[in-house]
Amino acid sequence: MAYLENAWYAAAWSKEVEVNRFLARTYLDIPVALFRNEAGEIVAMHDRCPHRFAPLSMGQIVDGAVRCGYHGLSFDQAGNCIKNLFSPVAPKAAKVRVYPVHEQDKMIWIWMGESEPDDPAKIPRLPHQTDPEMRCVFGLTTAKADYRLLSDNLMDLTHTALLHPSFGGLDYIPQFKSWEEDQQVVSRYIIEHMPSFIGEPGSTIHNHDEIRWIAPSTHILESRITPDDGSNHITYIPSAHILTPETAKSTHYFWSSAMAADTPMSDEDMYAQLVQAFDHEDKPMVEAVQRRMGDAELWDLDPILIATDAGSVRMRRILAAMIEREQAAKKDTPESTSVPLHTIEAAQQAVEAAAGA
Amino acid sequence: MAYLENAWYAAAWSKEVEVNRFLARTYLDIPVALFRNEAGEIVAMHDRCPHRFAPLSMGQIVDGAVRCGYHGLSFDQAGNCIKNLFSPVAPKAAKVRVYPVHEQDKMIWIWMGESEPDDPAKIPRLPHQTDPEMRCVFGLTTAKADYRLLSDNLMDLTHTALLHPSFGGLDYIPQFKSWEEDQQVVSRYIIEHMPSFIGEPGSTIHNHDEIRWIAPSTHILESRITPDDGSNHITYIPSAHILTPETAKSTHYFWSSAMAADTPMSDEDMYAQLVQAFDHEDKPMVEAVQRRMGDAELWDLDPILIATDAGSVRMRRILAAMIEREQAAKKDTPESTSVPLHTIEAAQQAVEAAAGA
Amino acid sequence: MAYLENAWYAAAWSKEVEVNRFLARTYLDIPVALFRNEAGEIVAMHDRCPHRFAPLSMGQIVDGAVRCGYHGLSFDQAGNCIKNLFSPVAPKAAKVRVYPVHEQDKMIWIWMGESEPDDPAKIPRLPHQTDPEMRCVFGLTTAKADYRLLSDNLMDLTHTALLHPSFGGLDYIPQFKSWEEDQQVVSRYIIEHMPSFIGEPGSTIHNHDEIRWIAPSTHILESRITPDDGSNHITYIPSAHILTPETAKSTHYFWSSAMAADTPMSDEDMYAQLVQAFDHEDKPMVEAVQRRMGDAELWDLDPILIATDAGSVRMRRILAAMIEREQAAKKDTPESTSVPLHTIEAAQQAVEAAAGA
Repeated sequence: MAYLENAWYAAAWSKEVEVNRFLARTYLDIPVALFRNEAGEIVAMHDRCPHRFAPLSMGQIVDGAVRCGYHGLSFDQAGNCIKNLFSPVAPKAAKVRVYPVHEQDKMIWIWMGESEPDDPAKIPRLPHQTDPEMRCVFGLTTAKADYRLLSDNLMDLTHTALLHPSFGGLDYIPQFKSWEEDQQVVSRYIIEHMPSFIGEPGSTIHNHDEIRWIAPSTHILESRITPDDGSNHITYIPSAHILTPETAKSTHYFWSSAMAADTPMSDEDMYAQLVQAFDHEDKPMVEAVQRRMGDAELWDLDPILIATDAGSVRMRRILAAMIEREQAAKKDTPESTSVPLHTIEAAQQAVEAAAGA
Repeated sequence: MAYLENAWYAAAWSKEVEVNRFLARTYLDIPVALFRNEAGEIVAMHDRCPHRFAPLSMGQIVDGAVRCGYHGLSFDQAGNCIKNLFSPVAPKAAKVRVYPVHEQDKMIWIWMGESEPDDPAKIPRLPHQTDPEMRCVFGLTTAKADYRLLSDNLMDLTHTALLHPSFGGLDYIPQFKSWEEDQQVVSRYIIEHMPSFIGEPGSTIHNHDEIRWIAPSTHILESRITPDDGSNHITYIPSAHILTPETAKSTHYFWSSAMAADTPMSDEDMYAQLVQAFDHEDKPMVEAVQRRMGDAELWDLDPILIATDAGSVRMRRILAAMIEREQAAKKDTPESTSVPLHTIEAAQQAVEAAAGA
Repeated sequence: MAYLENAWYAAAWSKEVEVNRFLARTYLDIPVALFRNEAGEIVAMHDRCPHRFAPLSMGQIVDGAVRCGYHGLSFDQAGNCIKNLFSPVAPKAAKVRVYPVHEQDKMIWIWMGESEPDDPAKIPRLPHQTDPEMRCVFGLTTAKADYRLLSDNLMDLTHTALLHPSFGGLDYIPQFKSWEEDQQVVSRYIIEHMPSFIGEPGSTIHNHDEIRWIAPSTHILESRITPDDGSNHITYIPSAHILTPETAKSTHYFWSSAMAADTPMSDEDMYAQLVQAFDHEDKPMVEAVQRRMGDAELWDLDPILIATDAGSVRMRRILAAMIEREQAAKKDTPESTSVPLHTIEAAQQAVEAAAGA
């Protein structure tokens, strides 16, 4: 098992989910239908009708209820069946699983696990996304790779030297340090007298990048660029890189990046530059790594380790331990003895009922 | 096993198979090459040469024999090898399996099973397809779904309310009754004072639909629409929906529908309306259900049952019992001890023969 | 196992591999990055960085070394890691497997096996590719089929009658003989008084084709066409058909064909005619055979054998014996007890090192 199940995951940017319109997306192999109700709250349901397994996202939202588009069973926002178009009685046994959600900082988070959700106060805050003194751009791409490979990518920013010419390219040769802080991992990269990649040609900068991993897959990157001209003006660029596994080998990659509101660069140019970096430089490389790894786990392939792997190794170690604990706890919990209510005999009873009608 | 093997299946519409031209199609996972001989009779052969496994449908029909397009072995219409271009002697051991076929009512039926074919008199008749007082349109589509999911769709016509606005849409709230008749299943739907979907706006009708399932996968639907204006003129629309598994998760869906010859609607418009309903409304939904079900069987997913499932549940119950009986009978029959005639030793002999030639 | 591992395989035409540019290609399921160094020599490396498994072919060639395009480890042409951009010390444990290559007769050969490569002097020579008195055209296609099915195709040229109208078509009804010569197999085809397919319409020829299989998958075909007019001028057309498995069900098919330098036909026309025959006539048929065979091995499907199969049967018998011997030898060799150097503990050490830095 490569997922931590009991965790808050990024489900969507707030702006993606509109009132009374479905957004269908898969998390941790489970299809989910999201929509915003008329009160503006997010509802997230298992995207599969319990009757004949049609995707509920192919249905309609009618008076705040989700009506399946195949045979019309309606479910309220708690997942209870409240109406059968063809009978005065709605089937009580029909229940759709509803997933806890939490919306803050322009992002919708979802809890896919079986246990009670953690206090949403534990969800990482993303202040740069709402800071009125900053302008923030938001991106989303789906990469055909295990989410941990994208985390590896983020926790070792030395890949900038090879992959990102517009962030400095081969001038990105940093002093590197990585450490743990209470189950989080920080990697810090400092480059002195680096040829400037954002200012006057020929000028140099002090470049300071610090990226923090927060389980299971949020990364907060803070870049601080100080010109060497003594002006002491710091360009501060906070960004978030948040990963949600879609399947074992595909990942929703949410990213956002902010700059001071008075930065001359337009939002469109900022967005385009970041799409170039994340979608067209990072993603093809990580997907190629996934293809080369095939079905193998990283450690099974006996990777060579170098000092700059420290961030990703710490991250993987903490995450693996969390997953191991979760799986062990699962084994200790006696499974509820599931009595199949809807066997062929139950079917027979329904048949008799209908036949006698 | 999800197939009833010993059964007549729809193979093609008569018009699809031309004289001396191959139609290649797969039934129950078995590739078949069909053609019409010069006497007008249909021939159906395993579409795989027993020599080097080329599809025979890539070959030619020469003087009524099928000549493989790879190395030229020729087979008569009983599947016997009658010619080797490169030797005066045809290899006796080379046999192609020929499948029994029966053509009637503009449809070609095929028997894929191992046992003797049932009397073709047992094949369901489709009189609406040949009635000179009616005009009939014919369709065929291949759906990426288990054939039983398409049967489920047909045996519960309440999906009309959600999927088929041009057949009444949400006005389709019927009185429903389903029953068995000697291994067949009938579902009947009656709607009184239904807003007319074919006549004058504002008028109402008595709508009477009855669909009959005949194992393994023929469905005959008879729709009768009577206006409430007392005129007593009944619009009678018989149709057939016949399913043949291509593979475990894909199905050939043959449909035909007839109306009185003097109906003002053109054949083109009738055909377009039905393609819209079956190809563009039913099929995407059933395929979506298949994707949500993945590799699971329906009952394993513990579906909620409601009264209107009675038709599909009866159908599945009868079909499952038939398949079970067939599989049990197979186990009781001692398999013919197969002596592999064409082992490497036989190969060696052929080599010696050729070497000595 | 369907591959002979310890063997020279065709990797590329010489002209495909340019100085300091990567050619990425998979052989026997192993991805390989090839390039030509500034001395003109070919280097072939496992196309997977031992650090984080990026394809090295996505990197750069810098001063003769291969620099990974992900985190910049550099490897010399022997596969030793010589530089880490972010550390004064290159990790000694980082080694990329380098494959022995040999270039001759305009072709690059590669040795994928574990044992010492055979003497390149044993690689089949292809003199028609370099003969100054001939003009030679070169082709390459990748077929979605087991390489042995393509060998079968070549070792039974009677398929010409059915597949290749421009090489005589149904007039290709030869006297056939096949024999072994010291682990090689020869198939000979002689047709007397064959209607000419290259000369004057109405004239006839003596057509003599001899194809030689050399393990594991080189085929040398020599065609000699003598007109029946007594002129005694022999048209000599040597060609090579060399197969390299890409995967179990896909094959790189290299072909070349030469004619006397003064042949009036242009190179373009020669090339087009051969692409028609090999890419558009042979390949679709062999791929169709593969689809019909699915995952089965040839003998498991109990093919009918006829005399003209003798060449392919001999080929398969010799090859199967070679593979069996190789696999048996593998079992006898005690595997080197692999001590995983780069476990989570080693990772931990790297982490400590970095953390302490």
